[in-house]
Amino acid sequence: MGDNWLRKPEWFWNQADGEPDIVHQWVRSLKEGETPGLILFGAPISRSSISVSGASLYPLEFRKMWKSFATYNLDENVDLSGFHVADAGDVAMHTTDIVTSHKRIETAAAYLSRHYPDSTLSMIGGDHSTTACAVRGIKETFPDETIGILQLDTHLDVRDPAELGPANGTPIRQLVDGGAVKGENIYNIGLHGYFNARPLIDYAKEHGINMVTLKQAREQGVTSAVGAALRRLAEKVDRIYVTVDMDVLDITQAPGVPASTPGGMTTIELFGSLIEIGKWKEVHYIDFVCLDPTKDSPVAETVKAGVYAWLQFVTGRVLGARKT
Amino acid sequence: MGDNWLRKPEWFWNQADGEPDIVHQWVRSLKEGETPGLILFGAPISRSSISVSGASLYPLEFRKMWKSFATYNLDENVDLSGFHVADAGDVAMHTTDIVTSHKRIETAAAYLSRHYPDSTLSMIGGDHSTTACAVRGIKETFPDETIGILQLDTHLDVRDPAELGPANGTPIRQLVDGGAVKGENIYNIGLHGYFNARPLIDYAKEHGINMVTLKQAREQGVTSAVGAALRRLAEKVDRIYVTVDMDVLDITQAPGVPASTPGGMTTIELFGSLIEIGKWKEVHYIDFVCLDPTKDSPVAETVKAGVYAWLQFVTGRVLGARKT
Amino acid sequence: MGDNWLRKPEWFWNQADGEPDIVHQWVRSLKEGETPGLILFGAPISRSSISVSGASLYPLEFRKMWKSFATYNLDENVDLSGFHVADAGDVAMHTTDIVTSHKRIETAAAYLSRHYPDSTLSMIGGDHSTTACAVRGIKETFPDETIGILQLDTHLDVRDPAELGPANGTPIRQLVDGGAVKGENIYNIGLHGYFNARPLIDYAKEHGINMVTLKQAREQGVTSAVGAALRRLAEKVDRIYVTVDMDVLDITQAPGVPASTPGGMTTIELFGSLIEIGKWKEVHYIDFVCLDPTKDSPVAETVKAGVYAWLQFVTGRVLGARKT
Amino acid sequence: MGDNWLRKPEWFWNQADGEPDIVHQWVRSLKEGETPGLILFGAPISRSSISVSGASLYPLEFRKMWKSFATYNLDENVDLSGFHVADAGDVAMHTTDIVTSHKRIETAAAYLSRHYPDSTLSMIGGDHSTTACAVRGIKETFPDETIGILQLDTHLDVRDPAELGPANGTPIRQLVDGGAVKGENIYNIGLHGYFNARPLIDYAKEHGINMVTLKQAREQGVTSAVGAALRRLAEKVDRIYVTVDMDVLDITQAPGVPASTPGGMTTIELFGSLIEIGKWKEVHYIDFVCLDPTKDSPVAETVKAGVYAWLQFVTGRVLGARKT
Amino acid sequence: MGDNWLRKPEWFWNQADGEPDIVHQWVRSLKEGETPGLILFGAPISRSSISVSGASLYPLEFRKMWKSFATYNLDENVDLSGFHVADAGDVAMHTTDIVTSHKRIETAAAYLSRHYPDSTLSMIGGDHSTTACAVRGIKETFPDETIGILQLDTHLDVRDPAELGPANGTPIRQLVDGGAVKGENIYNIGLHGYFNARPLIDYAKEHGINMVTLKQAREQGVTSAVGAALRRLAEKVDRIYVTVDMDVLDITQAPGVPASTPGGMTTIELFGSLIEIGKWKEVHYIDFVCLDPTKDSPVAETVKAGVYAWLQFVTGRVLGARKT
Amino acid sequence: MGDNWLRKPEWFWNQADGEPDIVHQWVRSLKEGETPGLILFGAPISRSSISVSGASLYPLEFRKMWKSFATYNLDENVDLSGFHVADAGDVAMHTTDIVTSHKRIETAAAYLSRHYPDSTLSMIGGDHSTTACAVRGIKETFPDETIGILQLDTHLDVRDPAELGPANGTPIRQLVDGGAVKGENIYNIGLHGYFNARPLIDYAKEHGINMVTLKQAREQGVTSAVGAALRRLAEKVDRIYVTVDMDVLDITQAPGVPASTPGGMTTIELFGSLIEIGKWKEVHYIDFVCLDPTKDSPVAETVKAGVYAWLQFVTGRVLGARKT
Repeated sequence: MGDNWLRKPEWFWNQADGEPDIVHQWVRSLKEGETPGLILFGAPISRSSISVSGASLYPLEFRKMWKSFATYNLDENVDLSGFHVADAGDVAMHTTDIVTSHKRIETAAAYLSRHYPDSTLSMIGGDHSTTACAVRGIKETFPDETIGILQLDTHLDVRDPAELGPANGTPIRQLVDGGAVKGENIYNIGLHGYFNARPLIDYAKEHGINMVTLKQAREQGVTSAVGAALRRLAEKVDRIYVTVDMDVLDITQAPGVPASTPGGMTTIELFGSLIEIGKWKEVHYIDFVCLDPTKDSPVAETVKAGVYAWLQFVTGRVLGARKT
Repeated sequence: MGDNWLRKPEWFWNQADGEPDIVHQWVRSLKEGETPGLILFGAPISRSSISVSGASLYPLEFRKMWKSFATYNLDENVDLSGFHVADAGDVAMHTTDIVTSHKRIETAAAYLSRHYPDSTLSMIGGDHSTTACAVRGIKETFPDETIGILQLDTHLDVRDPAELGPANGTPIRQLVDGGAVKGENIYNIGLHGYFNARPLIDYAKEHGINMVTLKQAREQGVTSAVGAALRRLAEKVDRIYVTVDMDVLDITQAPGVPASTPGGMTTIELFGSLIEIGKWKEVHYIDFVCLDPTKDSPVAETVKAGVYAWLQFVTGRVLGARKT
Repeated sequence: MGDNWLRKPEWFWNQADGEPDIVHQWVRSLKEGETPGLILFGAPISRSSISVSGASLYPLEFRKMWKSFATYNLDENVDLSGFHVADAGDVAMHTTDIVTSHKRIETAAAYLSRHYPDSTLSMIGGDHSTTACAVRGIKETFPDETIGILQLDTHLDVRDPAELGPANGTPIRQLVDGGAVKGENIYNIGLHGYFNARPLIDYAKEHGINMVTLKQAREQGVTSAVGAALRRLAEKVDRIYVTVDMDVLDITQAPGVPASTPGGMTTIELFGSLIEIGKWKEVHYIDFVCLDPTKDSPVAETVKAGVYAWLQFVTGRVLGARKT
Repeated sequence: MGDNWLRKPEWFWNQADGEPDIVHQWVRSLKEGETPGLILFGAPISRSSISVSGASLYPLEFRKMWKSFATYNLDENVDLSGFHVADAGDVAMHTTDIVTSHKRIETAAAYLSRHYPDSTLSMIGGDHSTTACAVRGIKETFPDETIGILQLDTHLDVRDPAELGPANGTPIRQLVDGGAVKGENIYNIGLHGYFNARPLIDYAKEHGINMVTLKQAREQGVTSAVGAALRRLAEKVDRIYVTVDMDVLDITQAPGVPASTPGGMTTIELFGSLIEIGKWKEVHYIDFVCLDPTKDSPVAETVKAGVYAWLQFVTGRVLGARKT
Repeated sequence: MGDNWLRKPEWFWNQADGEPDIVHQWVRSLKEGETPGLILFGAPISRSSISVSGASLYPLEFRKMWKSFATYNLDENVDLSGFHVADAGDVAMHTTDIVTSHKRIETAAAYLSRHYPDSTLSMIGGDHSTTACAVRGIKETFPDETIGILQLDTHLDVRDPAELGPANGTPIRQLVDGGAVKGENIYNIGLHGYFNARPLIDYAKEHGINMVTLKQAREQGVTSAVGAALRRLAEKVDRIYVTVDMDVLDITQAPGVPASTPGGMTTIELFGSLIEIGKWKEVHYIDFVCLDPTKDSPVAETVKAGVYAWLQFVTGRVLGARKT
Repeated sequence: MGDNWLRKPEWFWNQADGEPDIVHQWVRSLKEGETPGLILFGAPISRSSISVSGASLYPLEFRKMWKSFATYNLDENVDLSGFHVADAGDVAMHTTDIVTSHKRIETAAAYLSRHYPDSTLSMIGGDHSTTACAVRGIKETFPDETIGILQLDTHLDVRDPAELGPANGTPIRQLVDGGAVKGENIYNIGLHGYFNARPLIDYAKEHGINMVTLKQAREQGVTSAVGAALRRLAEKVDRIYVTVDMDVLDITQAPGVPASTPGGMTTIELFGSLIEIGKWKEVHYIDFVCLDPTKDSPVAETVKAGVYAWLQFVTGRVLGARKT
């Protein structure tokens, strides 16, 4: 009997088998000395979340879903497989010591931004507390450069760490209060409805954080509003960090994001924005946070949207690179 | 050991604690002698529904969800907390005597509209049978005034009470046949698709009910269509009653409304319309009916949409009041 | 005691009872010798699917859902009940012999297209493998006529039957390679994102299959793009076959289609397109495939969308007929 | 093409087709003039329930599930198909008038017990309020005979109709207070745990209702305890009515019964008891109530247990008849 | 209109209303100076769990479920309402600082055991990490007394805190290594199957932890085995602490305990054991941990089993007290 | 930064890492030339099932679940890690050609039984059609030996392949009619209730298949009944093949087996039986079939029971080996 009838179970499959037509065949493990176009790494922590969250499981589910996506983007008529994407794996988290875990994410971001300065870094959360760590790590690498943030989010995330510790509602305030980023260099697009209490809005106003409501963004087109914010940021800062809190999506489109709300962004609006974002060479860093696969719908629509969103950013990279 | 480590269980929390930044801190119990801007009361009945329904549980779930909503509306840049909203509690329902329960809703609406004539009344259903009760109660208070109805609904709700009794498919017909409201003073916006059998359409045409299909409304913009209907009503009647059957929403956005259908209104369209409705001073009454929390998605997207919708109406009140 | 209190269980209800106001009262069984406007038949097979699928159960669930739909289309102000629709039942499938089952579908399509040449045929799948059978059957009846296909689909469905057998990913390739339909006479609208690997795109390009991405279609309006494709097809071919793979719908709107994806068509776009399709007299055949009721949401939103979609096509037939 | 390839949809299937090997082929519609061994009828009401209930849908789901059960009982080595079971259909319920609906059930029970005095009657609820109706109807037919009740139930169901109306928590009290059945002629087996408040227990004690806790029943074996209760009843009364509130089952085995609790009866215990019950010729009437199919598990385990339970009773009838 | 028709929403209900027939009416808030028979307090932490857990939500859900339970235990014919149970509320947890949260639980246990030495303490977790805190707190109060532990658990919970920190797999090892409890004074009943890796078993053997497998316990009856373990403990130690890890239950009976497994204890076995446990005056402390309400079945069978279990312990207290 | 903070994603984990304390570390890939105690292989086919089934996904889910099981069996105090178990992978299935797929399973069974005659073979289905293939393959290897079957099953599985093809209801009949196994050498334990129509029972009786109902088995203890059947088989045949159709389990314990029913075997009964089975050296082959992971409960209770069952068999092997 030929061996071809005894197929190895899935986890024995060789990643390198076949042409890299499917995403899991295309993304390779990060090797020292190379310079990938984009490096991704996971920050699988969510015990820092105010509410119970399984966002720590997203990096794993994100990668598992790759086999449902081809490398060819039909809408843009572009094949991503020529673009070098490397996977650095996950930062190892401590089981109970949140401060240690956060410090490790910071160190990993510092390490990667220093050793791979020409690669775009893409962090897969985890909850939003990871953004503060990553930005601090990058700031460590480039202490003299100004960092700006484009935040796609339903919330301001400026709750007080003095009260909550470094929890998922606090990252932007950690960065502003800690001096890593100035309020005026932060643009939040996606705010809407009744999901930020007045003291938080007052904080944002005091510190000059630029709030673009979804209503305002939609008046000019969300992609366009995103482009405008990036243009203003590009004029003011050296490096742009984009953070996508998946709760920016409408609750009917993102059941797997516990903090998503009615009245949020559609996937179409998000997908369009990410191509735009990907095109800007000033954007060196991007993260995707707060997607909790344990709450996703049975057909995994949110995890699929998460992978799609990330690929749109990569498409933007390729299109942007092409342009230059 | 300090007492602050022994926190009282949730139901001991004092509603009055803290600034009224969150909706459950802002809404107070109705007191005699005061004149709130808006009074809300629950009509928790759904055993009058043709199909099995748990809409009777909505008033409770509606209030429980308040703690997920802030009083600040970011899109409109307005803080609702200065507007006085009072909760009159729920009308007590009889376990098996539907006629008695309905009569109590009618009496409650008569009582509140007489004693608080300057407050907007907002009823939280319950199924659509409650609308007939409420309108009759108001008519009792103002027998010489003309009442008009703006109905956002996928259905006409003109099924025959002679056959079904005062069930949830019959309220508009109860009111027209009973003389409380003339057909020509009823505008239904949201009708679409294949969800009203021909005899019901024939009844509506015979009685001059104004049918605006969703297709027609979308041609001019749903908010605009709503505004136009209110303008025509304002010219013809003394008091406008708005009834929002949550089944007007598309089934993909409102799994918790058993009668919702494909092709329905989006939450964005509904939310926009409710700000418009709230701005009209001729609108004295509004109800939200037929939302069954037992059928909602695990992330409660429909109940959240229900609270959002109600807050949009309140926002409209505040914006309208501001304008004058 | 009068007999009216002892109601027969549901399956004893007489289909013919009452006016045909509801869809299940309107559609009749096919009789020999008559010439209905439209004949529908089921092809309940899905063991030919690459992944586990319950699409074989759709014909039954499709018909069960009829009682939730009226015959009156409010948006178009048209009553379908005057249009003659007949149900030919389901093609009997073999339990384990897929080739035999496929051959029976082919024979059924040949039989119906020969004996009822003036009736539109509407097949309810089953998975997409059934389309290849149906088209071959029709080609058998009209060997000298040219057949064109309008495909609404997220995928090209041109995987290789040499590898997979006649599975659900292969129908278009079966037809092109088998000579039944030329690539240039195939228009696919709905392609988007990352769901077709490059070798499949290469095949499509080589064979001249017309690929209209969703992004392109949206630029001119999806209905319009559909009309344009039909116009071009009508000029080139004798008979147009439309195949609607329900996975063209966005995953947030079609949980009951396992292959649906983020970024897909909305139900509103699909419903509009189907009225357009129905109006074209050159369209003689239409199928709806790949809807798996076992994966639908608890409120059956996908099956409801499926019935709605089919009724929109019938509405188009009536409107088209009216026009002429 | 032969007609055998065009299979009729399910609802066209002829009940009489094939040998009566499967339950749905075996049970026939009730005809006047015949004397079946057992007559079943549905009482599809649950708007009389204190909590939201879909038990009104059980008669339909009960019958639909017949096709998953054969007529042959392997454990007892007996074929039920020789025993004549007839289906009288459902009592037609009024949409909103609960009193009228209850009166109709009473009349139906009176009618059937008078015209078919030699047939066992089996009512399929609906909620437990239906039991009071059925017993009153039977009492109407046999005013001079004493009726005893064996109740398998987690609850006493002696809440006060003066407060609740004829709701599902009240049937036993309705019958005791109304004089139809004496407390001493009622045996309740299945009581356990913390699910009857003291005032209810006091009522039961005052009226001499015989309470057999599950703990007591298990000490001698539940089947045995059931037999002992029937023996005592058979000595005291003319006719025994058995009511099976499906909430007697443990919550882990009956998710589709909202009032089921931990610590309840196992299906094995219930199935054994029902064979015992079926063997007693003094048992003329049996009902199964409070099973809500809308809350069942996805694999319908509770509805399947409901059909199994009913068949066990029929098996007992056959075995009992055989013995004599 | 009488006020009785305007019922206050649920959270306004006065706990003290009515006779204490229902559990939520019976349990009162803890007051200084009194000596309740039993004091309960919540330890709502689960971010210390190795896997994602919502056990932090159990104290709240536990109390909410009280209204479904009466104070009368029918099986034992005993009314609990005469026994004084007081609720001390929840220990306030820090959002991100697990060590601080654990220290607070320890302090709370020390405080309560010192100020209420004659009351039984019952802690409601939270995950199993809380047990180590509580035992340490008690040891603080009684430094010279020997504490023994009866653990009902599928696992040994002796993973290494040096590796994991004070996580939920480590409490027994924390206590043994920390010297608070000797291994020989620990009895674990419920161990079974394949859920403890060899190094953990080696640790238990080395430290003399008494392992009673479920198979062994069932040979003499689980209740009996529990009694035997308590007898041996009572001879050796001054105070017995019982910890019930709800994962001891079989997975088919406890879907809401993520770590439950096949082959586990039945609820009947657990309920019987808890009456036995309650009867021993040497048992001063009991906790119930690791029940995650977010994973419970839709009918909340696990939370209901949790409340039932706790009430069985209280029943044992009452029966034990009665005996003396 | 040390590399230990950048952990590789799960599929990079080295199976060989660490001590083989956990099942996925213990089972190794099959190598040529070795003689493992037990070889397992998957037969991932279920498109041969009469109803829609995802049992084809079980081999993968079975292996994924290994990481939740330790190699140490606490009840039996035995460590399995010293016993050599090898995984041969899955037989590769054809997408649409069921006959080819079946033939491959047969060939694989023939190959493995010939090349590894001293290893126990354990096949993981797939549906029950695979059993006929495996037995035929073994018969091919040992044409002159008599094979006996012990079947744990709710059904006889003797439906007619002439009608259904080689579907999942037919394997025993395929083997009896095909002469591979005599009816008298088949023992079925687990039959109960109403799940085998009379013609099937007649077939079994005619061919001398030994039917042991669950009621009969329980009278002597299920483990005991299993032992008795094996003793009789061991006297009559050369090689015993055990087939465990997981639908033998009660529906409340096996939601992930679509054909499971009320009144079935408990997991405790099954687990005990499998240790007994494992102890018999005459048992050379065992399969586990018909477990459909797509229908399992959210906590995967059925897949966990499946792995537990298989490990019990292995435990029996080890205990049996020990004894000799």
